[in-house]
Amino acid sequence: MLETRYNICMTDYAQEALAKHKELRGKIELKLKDTLDNKEKLSTYYTPGVAAVSSYLAEHPEETRNYTWTNNVVAVVSDGSAVLGLGNIGPEGALPVMEGKAMLFKHFAGIDAVPIVLNVHTADEIVATVKALAPSFGGINLEDIAAPICFEVEDRLKKELSIPVMHDDQHGTAVVTLAGLINATKVTGRKLNNTRVVLVGAGAAGIAIAKLLVKYAPGINIIAVDSKGIISSARDDLNESKQALLKVSNPGNISGSLDDALSNADIFIGVSKPNLLTETMVKTMAKEPIIFAMANPKPEIMPDVAQKAGAAVVATGRSDFPNQVNNALAFPGIFRGALDNRVKTITDDHKIKAAEAIAALVTNPTTENIIPPVGDKRLVSAISSVIV
Amino acid sequence: MLETRYNICMTDYAQEALAKHKELRGKIELKLKDTLDNKEKLSTYYTPGVAAVSSYLAEHPEETRNYTWTNNVVAVVSDGSAVLGLGNIGPEGALPVMEGKAMLFKHFAGIDAVPIVLNVHTADEIVATVKALAPSFGGINLEDIAAPICFEVEDRLKKELSIPVMHDDQHGTAVVTLAGLINATKVTGRKLNNTRVVLVGAGAAGIAIAKLLVKYAPGINIIAVDSKGIISSARDDLNESKQALLKVSNPGNISGSLDDALSNADIFIGVSKPNLLTETMVKTMAKEPIIFAMANPKPEIMPDVAQKAGAAVVATGRSDFPNQVNNALAFPGIFRGALDNRVKTITDDHKIKAAEAIAALVTNPTTENIIPPVGDKRLVSAISSVIV
Repeated sequence: MLETRYNICMTDYAQEALAKHKELRGKIELKLKDTLDNKEKLSTYYTPGVAAVSSYLAEHPEETRNYTWTNNVVAVVSDGSAVLGLGNIGPEGALPVMEGKAMLFKHFAGIDAVPIVLNVHTADEIVATVKALAPSFGGINLEDIAAPICFEVEDRLKKELSIPVMHDDQHGTAVVTLAGLINATKVTGRKLNNTRVVLVGAGAAGIAIAKLLVKYAPGINIIAVDSKGIISSARDDLNESKQALLKVSNPGNISGSLDDALSNADIFIGVSKPNLLTETMVKTMAKEPIIFAMANPKPEIMPDVAQKAGAAVVATGRSDFPNQVNNALAFPGIFRGALDNRVKTITDDHKIKAAEAIAALVTNPTTENIIPPVGDKRLVSAISSVIV
Repeated sequence: MLETRYNICMTDYAQEALAKHKELRGKIELKLKDTLDNKEKLSTYYTPGVAAVSSYLAEHPEETRNYTWTNNVVAVVSDGSAVLGLGNIGPEGALPVMEGKAMLFKHFAGIDAVPIVLNVHTADEIVATVKALAPSFGGINLEDIAAPICFEVEDRLKKELSIPVMHDDQHGTAVVTLAGLINATKVTGRKLNNTRVVLVGAGAAGIAIAKLLVKYAPGINIIAVDSKGIISSARDDLNESKQALLKVSNPGNISGSLDDALSNADIFIGVSKPNLLTETMVKTMAKEPIIFAMANPKPEIMPDVAQKAGAAVVATGRSDFPNQVNNALAFPGIFRGALDNRVKTITDDHKIKAAEAIAALVTNPTTENIIPPVGDKRLVSAISSVIV
């Protein structure tokens, strides 16, 4: 029934989306901050007046933000290699998503964002391109770049640029997941440090979630699982991403299946695929388990099924269920703060503080209210004030 | 007197420009074509709806322009190596000019333009960067890139990209110069094919002007001159740019000084430096000569001085004198046409047609009216309709 309703909704959104995108032919446009309706303005904003500004900035490049839009503009950069759940669909396919992301930046945080889709795909090429165009922007939001290349790209750009760089699929998701878990553990009377977590999904989001949880809650026991079972050093089939995940998970180096991992686990975190988790499996978890089923658009388990099996708190990526874990809660405030406070690097400390700021907006967390809704007007200022 | 007034004006614009740029902190911003004020719109423009658009474009990349802003967006790309008359001032110094250019694109032609300033400066690096980000845009306006690198960059990008690429310092200037000369020769009863032209300035604009004149008016005799005299094959000090200029000038391969070149010349074209041309020199030219003194902001000769020496038509780059030769007459219409008509390459034929279209807007050319003013509302449609 839910499934049917959802499929109808999806079809509706798909048709409506195709129709609206074709009608608008682009969702964003340029706007001038002043008119150019007389010669004086042309001479002030363009030649000859602009020469004075250019000369000044050539001598004082550190003042560029005070005289250009770099104080408020972020590039949303993707090579189209891991777009939504669609995979490697290339820059053209990625562009509508990046335009949409630009809309969110403007709508939620007043940030001007420019979609930059690339037709290069190696880490070296992406890094070289972003470094070359970096003086045009005040920050870089990396988006929908596949693992493991996304890790190298972000690491190198963070080191080599003096403007904030964040791969939102990793850190936006991790921040919001942590925010949700802070309140979910509160609701179920747990301490995150003492929990056992089963994490399914060795992509960009999964690895970033594991890293941030370990940083925030030392002692936490994360068991990462893929289609072949628990990720451990006994495995000889681990690709680069899974090896990275192993470094921050499975401290006891156990082996086994997803069922083995779930047995008596406190928390399930899925950034994987639909219908992975069954009612029977949830029943083997600890009492009143926490389920974050964030596969999009179809979660690893439907909330009603998880609840029937005893889950105390269920979060998904969907807006039509309670507890939506959505990057849009975090990235607008993170970049707003980074731009306004001239933060050069977004650190783990920033991410943790952002998660705490989001969690703190829910004064009395309950099973159906662990996280503020997308669009909560307090989010941007609450987060940006801690990105200092 | 004029000089004094001009200096005062310059100071005013400089102060006003610095003040306004600091006040606005950027002259452009992003605007959403629709609001995001409810969940349905979020689901239409972003996930899940946008997935349908992305899937469609992944399969039909040729349809990207019908569903994204690429049908109306141009990148204004500069490495800051030849900004206005300021020289190689780098990407930060270049940014206010590129923002200003973006304003002109929007104001005159409704085109969304994004300033992209680069901190790479070799032809290989600039080409690689622009090729990498090209799927984000519907056209590339190269701006303020120094000769001779600008030639290689434009040539390679034109060959390797399937969207229009134009270095405006070259071709915008050349188109408007040709437009002006079409009417100036009409006013003085000349045929451009039979004229002798002295051209001073071996930069991007000078070479493009020479190339376009030779294409438009076979038989024209262009003598290019630099600080050492006439550029001829007898010279052994010609850099790459001057060698390029020699290829389209000096068919008789004469040698000598600027004075030698000017003797009995019909037309002087300066894209060089202030006060290069004196009253005495103009008097040695043919009767009723045509003077295009386009050094900016101070021309090679002041219009009143040139007229006193017998010049029939004088054009400059300045808006405070008649006959302003300004790129802003051409580039908005050229890109409007290229975007709307899906032109993949802007050819010499396009440039000549654009020049003719601009010239044709002046129905009765006179000595003080050979070219429409910047902002003439007929310009964009007149030009764009011939860029097919």
